[in-house]
Amino acid sequence: MNETLSFSSILRAADTLRGVAHVTPVVTSGQLDRLAGAHVFMKCENLQRTGAFKFRGAYYALSRVKSGGTARTVVTLSSGNHGQGVALAARLFDLTAHVVMPAPRSAVKCEAVVGYGGIVWPTDDRQSAERKVADLQAEERAASIHAFNNLDVMAGQGTVMLELLDQVESVDVLLAPVGGGGLLSGLCVAGHQLRPALKIFACEPEGAADAGESIKLGRIAPMPNPRTIADGLRTSLGSRTLPILREHLAGMFLVSEQEIVGAMRFAFERIKIVIEPSAAVALAPILRAEPRLAGRRIGVVLTGGNVDLTGLWSSLTTT
Amino acid sequence: MNETLSFSSILRAADTLRGVAHVTPVVTSGQLDRLAGAHVFMKCENLQRTGAFKFRGAYYALSRVKSGGTARTVVTLSSGNHGQGVALAARLFDLTAHVVMPAPRSAVKCEAVVGYGGIVWPTDDRQSAERKVADLQAEERAASIHAFNNLDVMAGQGTVMLELLDQVESVDVLLAPVGGGGLLSGLCVAGHQLRPALKIFACEPEGAADAGESIKLGRIAPMPNPRTIADGLRTSLGSRTLPILREHLAGMFLVSEQEIVGAMRFAFERIKIVIEPSAAVALAPILRAEPRLAGRRIGVVLTGGNVDLTGLWSSLTTT
Repeated sequence: MNETLSFSSILRAADTLRGVAHVTPVVTSGQLDRLAGAHVFMKCENLQRTGAFKFRGAYYALSRVKSGGTARTVVTLSSGNHGQGVALAARLFDLTAHVVMPAPRSAVKCEAVVGYGGIVWPTDDRQSAERKVADLQAEERAASIHAFNNLDVMAGQGTVMLELLDQVESVDVLLAPVGGGGLLSGLCVAGHQLRPALKIFACEPEGAADAGESIKLGRIAPMPNPRTIADGLRTSLGSRTLPILREHLAGMFLVSEQEIVGAMRFAFERIKIVIEPSAAVALAPILRAEPRLAGRRIGVVLTGGNVDLTGLWSSLTTT
Repeated sequence: MNETLSFSSILRAADTLRGVAHVTPVVTSGQLDRLAGAHVFMKCENLQRTGAFKFRGAYYALSRVKSGGTARTVVTLSSGNHGQGVALAARLFDLTAHVVMPAPRSAVKCEAVVGYGGIVWPTDDRQSAERKVADLQAEERAASIHAFNNLDVMAGQGTVMLELLDQVESVDVLLAPVGGGGLLSGLCVAGHQLRPALKIFACEPEGAADAGESIKLGRIAPMPNPRTIADGLRTSLGSRTLPILREHLAGMFLVSEQEIVGAMRFAFERIKIVIEPSAAVALAPILRAEPRLAGRRIGVVLTGGNVDLTGLWSSLTTT
C-alpha cells in the first residue's frame, strides 16, 4: 500500500468540516496544573458532535463518498463512537448508513446510532461482523468506511491538531490515546508539518498494550484478549496507521485500570466534564506527574464522553 | 440602603478578574437546539475555578478587602459554592478565611473549603451560623463577605454577562437560576447597559419559589421549608438584589424536581458536562421548549458543577 496520509488532505478536511464540526473548547485547570507540575491544555472532543472526535473523520470520509457520486449507502463496523459519527454524517449527507456492531456493545450506543438514523446490525463476534460488512458492500453497493485504516478518516481526525495549535500559543508535548491509531496518525502528520519540535506520545492501557508492542516489532501484533474498561482502545493498529506512528511518535505511556478510573473521576469531579474511559487514558499520565512531562506545556486530547451513566441517576434520585 | 450596583463596578471587577478567573467557554449542541426549537449558548461556569461562578464575586470582594488594608481575615456563611470561592480567593490574597457552614452540608463541600485553605465552622442551623459569623467579626476583626447581598460580590458575578456578550454575536434571551439573586443582579445591570433589548429570565424550583413571590409582593418573602434538590437556590433574595430584579427581569420560569434531574441528566449524557442541580434549573425550561423561548437565541448560565458523584464510582467499578 503506497498511499499515505498527507498534510494537504488534513487541510481539505478542515475546509469541509468548517461550520459543521464544533471547534471544541480548550479547558485548563489550576488544580490539574499543580498536580502535574506542568501546564495542561485539554482539547475537549467529548464536547464534539456525537460526543467524540470520530465525527470529524466520519464526516470527511462521507463527504468524499457523496462527492464521488458512486454510492448512496455506507457501511461500517463499530460498536463505538465511529458508528455514531458515521450515522450522523450520513444523515447530514442524505446517505444511508449501516452500522455493524459486534458484541460487546452497550444499549446506549446502539440507541444513539438509531437516534442518528443509522441501521444497526448486531452480530455475535467480530468475525461475523466482518462477513456482514462484506455482504452489505456486495448487496447494497455500500461504500465501506473503516474506523481508522482509511486515509479520509485519518485526515478528518488530524483537524484536531490544526485547531489545538490555533487555540493554544505554544504546546511542546501532546498526549492522545491509541486504539487503531487513526487520530494519532492525523495528529502526527499535522504536528510534524506545523510544529516539528512537538513531541507526541500515545497512551495505552496496560491491558491492551498492543500498539506499543506493534510499534516496537514493526508489525501489527494484536493482543488476543484485551482487558480494559477503555472499550475504544481494544483494537489493533492498521496497515496505514502503524508506519506513521512508528515514524513520528516520541514515545508511549502505559496506564493501569485504576489510573483510568481515577482520571475519569478527576475529570468529572474537578474539571466538571464527562469523559469516557478511553479519553481518561491520556489524562492518567499527567495525573501521575510523569517525569517526562514536568514543566511542559502539554496538550491532551480528551477524545470522547460517551459513557453509560445509568447507575448515577439511580444513586442521585434515591438520595 | 441607598447604594446600588453600578455598571462601572462590574467593569472594575472584570479588570481585577482578568488573568485570574477563567474566561469560561460557551458550548452549543445541535441536539439541544433541535429539542428547544431555538439556538442555545451555554456559558459554562461549571468550568470556572472552584467549579462555580461564585469565585468571581468572592475574588473581587476580597480584592477590595485586601486593598482596603483594614482586615487580614474574612468570614462568610455558606454551605455551598460561595464558601469555596471565598476560601480560594483568600489563599490567593494571603488572607485568612473562616467559612461558617450550617447543616445540611456535604462532606465533599467541607473538604473542598479545607482544600483551599479555609477554616470550616460547622453549625447545627442557620441561626447559630449567623451568631458564629458575628462572633468571628468581633473576635478576629474579620470582614464579612455576604454570599449575595454585597455590592462587590454582585459586581464580580456581573462579569459573566460581559464575557457572554463578547463571546456570542447576538443573544436575545438570557436564563439564569435565582437563589439570593447576586448573579442575576449582576447580569441585569450589565445587560441593561450593554444590550437593553435583552430579556432576562430567572429560573426557580417549584419547591423554593420564594424569589418570584418576593418580586410580585415587592418584599422579601422567604419560604419556610424550601424543598428542592437544588441546594444553591434555597435562600431568599436580599435587600440589595430584590429591587434590581424587580426593575429588570422580563419574567420567571418555575421548574419541577423531575425537570431538574432530567436537565442534569441531559447535560451529563448529551452535552458531556457535569452540572449541579442549581445549574440544571436554568436548563430545564429550554428542554421543555417553552413557547416564550421558541426561535430565540438563548444564553444560559450553567452556574456550577459541584455535585457529589460518589454513587457513580461504585456503579462504574463494579461493572
